[in-house]
Amino acid sequence: MSIMLISRTRNMEPYRDALMDLDSNLDVEIWPDIKSRKRVSFAVAWKQPKNQFSQYPNLKVVSSLGAGADHLLKDDSIPQHVALTRVVAPTLSDQMCDFVTLSVLAILRHIHDYNKQQVWADWKPRVHYKKEDVMVGVMGLGNIGKKVAVRLAENGFNVSGWSNSKKSIPNVVTYSKEQLDPFLAATNILVCLLPLTKETTDILSLSLFKKLSSPGFLINVARGEHLVEEDLIYALDMGLLNHAALDVFQKEPLPESHPFWGRDAITITPHIASVTEPEEVADLILENYKRMLSSMELLNRVDRYKGY
Amino acid sequence: MSIMLISRTRNMEPYRDALMDLDSNLDVEIWPDIKSRKRVSFAVAWKQPKNQFSQYPNLKVVSSLGAGADHLLKDDSIPQHVALTRVVAPTLSDQMCDFVTLSVLAILRHIHDYNKQQVWADWKPRVHYKKEDVMVGVMGLGNIGKKVAVRLAENGFNVSGWSNSKKSIPNVVTYSKEQLDPFLAATNILVCLLPLTKETTDILSLSLFKKLSSPGFLINVARGEHLVEEDLIYALDMGLLNHAALDVFQKEPLPESHPFWGRDAITITPHIASVTEPEEVADLILENYKRMLSSMELLNRVDRYKGY
Repeated sequence: MSIMLISRTRNMEPYRDALMDLDSNLDVEIWPDIKSRKRVSFAVAWKQPKNQFSQYPNLKVVSSLGAGADHLLKDDSIPQHVALTRVVAPTLSDQMCDFVTLSVLAILRHIHDYNKQQVWADWKPRVHYKKEDVMVGVMGLGNIGKKVAVRLAENGFNVSGWSNSKKSIPNVVTYSKEQLDPFLAATNILVCLLPLTKETTDILSLSLFKKLSSPGFLINVARGEHLVEEDLIYALDMGLLNHAALDVFQKEPLPESHPFWGRDAITITPHIASVTEPEEVADLILENYKRMLSSMELLNRVDRYKGY
Repeated sequence: MSIMLISRTRNMEPYRDALMDLDSNLDVEIWPDIKSRKRVSFAVAWKQPKNQFSQYPNLKVVSSLGAGADHLLKDDSIPQHVALTRVVAPTLSDQMCDFVTLSVLAILRHIHDYNKQQVWADWKPRVHYKKEDVMVGVMGLGNIGKKVAVRLAENGFNVSGWSNSKKSIPNVVTYSKEQLDPFLAATNILVCLLPLTKETTDILSLSLFKKLSSPGFLINVARGEHLVEEDLIYALDMGLLNHAALDVFQKEPLPESHPFWGRDAITITPHIASVTEPEEVADLILENYKRMLSSMELLNRVDRYKGY
């Protein structure tokens, strides 16, 4: 029995080392250097190469390296009997709480303007948005979204949340799936923390932006595929949105020629809102590996039907 | 009896209008258009012109327009029998909590680097500082400093505080006046929220920066005079400090030729951490004006001996 770590883009050595630190008897291999494909029973994948998983006859579980599992759900080479899991690390959600709080405050305080003014030695105080005048709306109230909504409320913001099934969260006004329009109509700062599914792909579109309250702002920390990129530029140009903070993109790294880079009304960060720590991930991977060996219920299963 | 609003730099009309909205019978005049100097019993001052106050024989109270009173304490034209007060508005401290939280998060997440990278379309994720690895040290635990320390702790930061008299604050490690060195030795991110007094002028100096824990960061949201400006540049160049976020300066507006503007390791905002709202200030001014008329104890008295 072995664990395979597989990614096109990420260096998996720190994850192997962290797993071996926990249990030196583990057999952990990094794709493409797999000695025996038959021995692989558990795979950990992040932006994996195409059409790989059918070649591992004894594969039982594929885990995402992060909280998103869309790269697994879209991979037809994973047989249907293989269980999918994801990693929900406590510091992941805390990092996301920090990053969204930072992004909301930076928007209200015109920090992007002051950064540009500094280049020109331009001292120009601006009237900032008052927190009592804005509503922050969180789309997606899963593990992470729920914590982000609570943290924003703790920091004194008006917070609402929208999710597939209606949730109850202290100090947060919640809306159910069919209440999307009233949720948007009450929201100024829209925070996207949705899972990526067929239904949520392209959800951040011009027709959605038109429904937001004014002034309107977008923070996307979920997946690039949630956003129709040309619609964002159009909405900013039309004044439907005042500013957007984007941490995720359809193509990452964001190509040098992409028009987002040069826009004053867009703040770009390179997918750093929440970063998995190898040590913390290794703990959670090993837990599920042992559960698989013992035929116990896996943690953080991904439901193929629901799509997250 | 009249109220005089006096400032060299600030437009006082919104404050007069807010006072008149509260009570249209008030007699409020804006310097220099004072009809009768004898009638002025209460003055509200912000960066006032020099040597003014001796000309008002019936002056009883001078209030600062903000939380700082150093401009009143340094003004020898205010007779000793005149009481000094300041304005401690609830949103002032909330705004400061927001701004310091924003500044701490921006430092940990390298936001200033990402802003510069965006100009060059440079996608380069950086390893961020983990909040559990840093201590935020708040200098000054008055009305505002105490609330800032509590807010930072609520956001999951390790927080310590240093003040003249030792305070007790939940989840905050506090140090007394003579414990400055151990406070600094344990601090990575130093937040200056001190009142400006003879003792605290120039306190942010090279010898202080040397005592900080590494990596070291400075956030100054108090007064420009707390900082020895050339010492900051030297400390950044020497690697004693990694970054500084400055909202206040010895000369404001910060002159175009000032070397701070061009430094990558300094983030400049134009004194916007906490901005008084005319409506809120008017409430507090009127309250003290009525207390003066009724010979009741004034709110937020400034102690000339303590210097704040």
